[in-house]
Amino acid sequence: MATGKINVSVENIFPLIKKFLYSDHEIFLRELVSNATDATLKLKHLTTIGETTVEYGNPMIEIKIDKEGKKIHITDQGLGMTEEEVQKYINEVAFSGAEEFLDKYKDSAKDSGIIGHFGLGFYSAFMVAEKVEIITKSYKDEPAAHWTCDGSPNFIMEPSDKTDRGTEIILHIAEDSTEFLEKNRISELLGKYNKFMPVPIKFGTRTETLPKPEGAKKEDKAPTIEVDNIINNPNPAWTKMPADLKEEDYKGFYRELYPMQFEEPLFHIHLNVDYPFNLTGILYFPKLKNDLNVQKDRIQLYQNQVFVTDNVEGIVPEFLTMLRGVIDSPDIPLNVSRSYLQADGAVKKIASYITRKVADKLSSLFKNNREDFEAKWNDIKIVIEYGMLSEDKFFEKADKFALYPTVDGNFYTFEELQKKIKDNHTDKDDKLVILYASNKEAQHSYIETAKARGFEVLLLDSPIVPHLIQKLETSKENISFARVDADHLDNLIKKEDTQISKLSEEEKEQLKTVLDEVIQNKSYTVQLEAMDSDAVPFIITEPEFLRRMKEMQQTGGGGMFGMGNMPEMYNLIVNTNSDLVNEILNTKTAKKKERLINQSLDLARLSKGLLKGEELTNFIKRSYEIIK
Amino acid sequence: MATGKINVSVENIFPLIKKFLYSDHEIFLRELVSNATDATLKLKHLTTIGETTVEYGNPMIEIKIDKEGKKIHITDQGLGMTEEEVQKYINEVAFSGAEEFLDKYKDSAKDSGIIGHFGLGFYSAFMVAEKVEIITKSYKDEPAAHWTCDGSPNFIMEPSDKTDRGTEIILHIAEDSTEFLEKNRISELLGKYNKFMPVPIKFGTRTETLPKPEGAKKEDKAPTIEVDNIINNPNPAWTKMPADLKEEDYKGFYRELYPMQFEEPLFHIHLNVDYPFNLTGILYFPKLKNDLNVQKDRIQLYQNQVFVTDNVEGIVPEFLTMLRGVIDSPDIPLNVSRSYLQADGAVKKIASYITRKVADKLSSLFKNNREDFEAKWNDIKIVIEYGMLSEDKFFEKADKFALYPTVDGNFYTFEELQKKIKDNHTDKDDKLVILYASNKEAQHSYIETAKARGFEVLLLDSPIVPHLIQKLETSKENISFARVDADHLDNLIKKEDTQISKLSEEEKEQLKTVLDEVIQNKSYTVQLEAMDSDAVPFIITEPEFLRRMKEMQQTGGGGMFGMGNMPEMYNLIVNTNSDLVNEILNTKTAKKKERLINQSLDLARLSKGLLKGEELTNFIKRSYEIIK
Repeated sequence: MATGKINVSVENIFPLIKKFLYSDHEIFLRELVSNATDATLKLKHLTTIGETTVEYGNPMIEIKIDKEGKKIHITDQGLGMTEEEVQKYINEVAFSGAEEFLDKYKDSAKDSGIIGHFGLGFYSAFMVAEKVEIITKSYKDEPAAHWTCDGSPNFIMEPSDKTDRGTEIILHIAEDSTEFLEKNRISELLGKYNKFMPVPIKFGTRTETLPKPEGAKKEDKAPTIEVDNIINNPNPAWTKMPADLKEEDYKGFYRELYPMQFEEPLFHIHLNVDYPFNLTGILYFPKLKNDLNVQKDRIQLYQNQVFVTDNVEGIVPEFLTMLRGVIDSPDIPLNVSRSYLQADGAVKKIASYITRKVADKLSSLFKNNREDFEAKWNDIKIVIEYGMLSEDKFFEKADKFALYPTVDGNFYTFEELQKKIKDNHTDKDDKLVILYASNKEAQHSYIETAKARGFEVLLLDSPIVPHLIQKLETSKENISFARVDADHLDNLIKKEDTQISKLSEEEKEQLKTVLDEVIQNKSYTVQLEAMDSDAVPFIITEPEFLRRMKEMQQTGGGGMFGMGNMPEMYNLIVNTNSDLVNEILNTKTAKKKERLINQSLDLARLSKGLLKGEELTNFIKRSYEIIK
Repeated sequence: MATGKINVSVENIFPLIKKFLYSDHEIFLRELVSNATDATLKLKHLTTIGETTVEYGNPMIEIKIDKEGKKIHITDQGLGMTEEEVQKYINEVAFSGAEEFLDKYKDSAKDSGIIGHFGLGFYSAFMVAEKVEIITKSYKDEPAAHWTCDGSPNFIMEPSDKTDRGTEIILHIAEDSTEFLEKNRISELLGKYNKFMPVPIKFGTRTETLPKPEGAKKEDKAPTIEVDNIINNPNPAWTKMPADLKEEDYKGFYRELYPMQFEEPLFHIHLNVDYPFNLTGILYFPKLKNDLNVQKDRIQLYQNQVFVTDNVEGIVPEFLTMLRGVIDSPDIPLNVSRSYLQADGAVKKIASYITRKVADKLSSLFKNNREDFEAKWNDIKIVIEYGMLSEDKFFEKADKFALYPTVDGNFYTFEELQKKIKDNHTDKDDKLVILYASNKEAQHSYIETAKARGFEVLLLDSPIVPHLIQKLETSKENISFARVDADHLDNLIKKEDTQISKLSEEEKEQLKTVLDEVIQNKSYTVQLEAMDSDAVPFIITEPEFLRRMKEMQQTGGGGMFGMGNMPEMYNLIVNTNSDLVNEILNTKTAKKKERLINQSLDLARLSKGLLKGEELTNFIKRSYEIIK
């Protein structure tokens, strides 16, 4: 048996870094600006704890492009390095300066927000540069150093005449990376990764117009001044305490996050916890559309103010991925597989903390300003309904504040609804039948008929409603939902008393025969019912169960396999007590009988939105003839 | 000035590999199976060129899970390694064996399909294992070696009594990676990454039922046998020559790729090129829905039969990402930024090669079997139309075979259409006006009216049609498109002769006054027109330009800013020559006049799909009264 030490072959490490380190080369800028930020915050920390007497001042980081020279300069006014430190931190790959620093100043450094975790970040420079220079002067009284490396493992170390404190990195951009010499590209990257980093970042200058001096003539131009163009906000709202922020600040931060978004958010939730994990952030409820898919991935994940990703899958519960905003946590493990992330204990706790905070916020909005909550309901319901479906803990809480709007614009909680409709909506088997519509326009005549009978009709129009009512029916006792067009009302809410038919059994037979002769369309099952004589003569209904199963299949999940492709089935309910049906029965000429039946059937189909194309054209022609 | 050599600190390299090497830990299995495949193919190559006399045989790779012992074994029957080679290839991180091998056997090895590019693949084992063992016996007559490493840079090397040729890797799975001890998880990974790798991969066994022996009784059970469960197809269709494949083989391979897909593809395109880049693959045209977004990312990208990704953005032109199938090319640079990929010369050539092959295939389908091409048109048009919009080179080719179907199911190329309708559709300014509908049902009455006048009406129902016709109008001369409901026909295709109005100017004034009194709805602009006396009395039209701009905005891109939110504008065209309009004018009682106007307006709105909700309910009520 022999033992030995694995040897990392340096000759091969650079091509490897270039190929493997990050799949996205643009990351180099994030890494180098993070290093510059670290160096600045470390100096701040040392001055704070009295370790050094140098003036901290108002340091900034500057990015400059030298397009002609094919160079990018990144300059900070931080700690700087001595030659010895360059030797230690740069020439020894994979030795993290930040980690050592945190180790040394453990307790006091905890809140200073130092970012770096791995020393390899600097080497990402070689993903885009064929040569890299470091010119650096330490805050300690030592000469400045100048390090140069062309991507081979060999470097050159020289003295430098740099006199001001800090580090300048010069990237000599490689042929295949000239995209990074474009001002717009760098602006884009700074906007994506560095927008909220804690040290001001300067990228070029911009012109500001000053007020005209007193006594200036009308034709005199206003004086202008060149000012530093600072691309970041070093103190974003989420790093502040909720007590220090006004409503306007939250709205302002939303505009900062989503400058292209013109609509204001409905409300926000400020997240702030430091045990058992560290997490800050602000979530916003935007106005949500009814489409579940198009609006995900708008929440941005940061670690200590450095943008990481906008894919928060696995960190934020799925139903909340429709929200917007920022989450900042150093405790979320990155670069691990998503399946591991979802099994990770800390991440699970984070997800359930966020869920609880959202439920609490909604509950307090409901309690403190019911009117406002109702006004916002239609814009936020999709999140709440989806949450109720997917998270049982959320369901329990939301059951107290989830609203059920009626077609007339009243909003009830489930408990209030039950109370309100108990008498009228309870059928002879003691079941509470809740009537709803999914579309006020399309089901207008059915809604009107139900309202005329004194029933309340809910308006439930989210795409997940079929799933939600299925869940409500199984989690609550003795209730059922029925859409207003599922059957005629006497059948939907069966009471003891039944209507008496004006027609004899024989007449009914006769009527049935006539109808079957004229109505050849097989998708309608004719059903004679004795209803109020004022009720419409013909109604088309669509049984609840089948329709709901089909809808559940179409929105994905649930329902029964294959139901999504079943044909629609309708009942044609003919009111045997209506005058028109009497007329149909008693009309002598076959042609007139047929015309009455067809016109009534077409009107019933129109009511249900089923008359289209050629049949509609024929109906219109027939109607013109009738009015002429 | 001093020079030096950068030193890679080995102590830190393992945690780095674990954190950084791949963002997805599951990759370890792909890497290790790739290494095993390499080792096997190298041996094959050496036997082929006579470098060794050992028997190649029928080697396979075996994956075994030892759940209790928390181990995964990956065993191959390839080349194996001597102790010296382990020292060289394993103990020196970042030294690629494959690269050295390819270098040595440059010309002969070119087609042997060796995969590995970087020696680091092996170390991905440490992303999931706390200890890794290698037991290996070379094909050379040397003793077997046993290497063990616990993730520190220290390793142990011992002799081993392994007698059969090849390498066994034993992963001692770490606590945070126990998911990989689940059979289903490993099956899933093998299915994802190794399904088409070139050496058979065994994962467990499965039971096969044999035929009953002759003379067996009815109650006797059929005998069963345990056979190796081979999870891959080492010779997938795309690696074969088109001449060796039948239609059935292509369909079979499609089922292999998409086992959950029940619909067969419409046709395929076999890609096969080796200069100026290497690329093989098979693309399939599935039946496509009209939704552009939901069906992307189904094309799988391989490198030498190893699955890489199903995100082919930047490699395949955007309009073809709706297709399915496989692309295999060692020449596509991975792990580079997408923007670099899109600028890369080789990748650009690949994209334009694929575009050309697709265009050629479509062209030959059109020429060789026009009937079949027409039958498939509606299922493929979205790709072709999108391609015509986005790639000028494709437009040029597709212009010859793109079809324009009529509402009656005839299909014309643009040239055929022009010829067919030239006489009837050319207006007095010599412009060819092409009439189209976007929905046969919704625009039925308008279509019928146009057909009755002898016009051809196209059916163009893709969501990108507004963009496409805009493109056609600008790239062809003296043509314009108009939807059938954009105006009445005499205005859409203006001829020299004009209809004479039966009404005097005074009567027109009178009619206008009456109409304006009754019709309070401001979205209708009343317009009196002298039309054929048989034409409908009232028609609602929607001007082409505004509607098209709105639609273009809604499908994204094009149109004019803000148009998407403009209200719909309609014209109500009243035919002054119709009998009913005469009746309206001459009816004495105001009430009857009003009823005639309202009923006619409602019928016109029904025709255009504009009568809904309460207004529809009222119309139905009124209609019941009229027929009673």
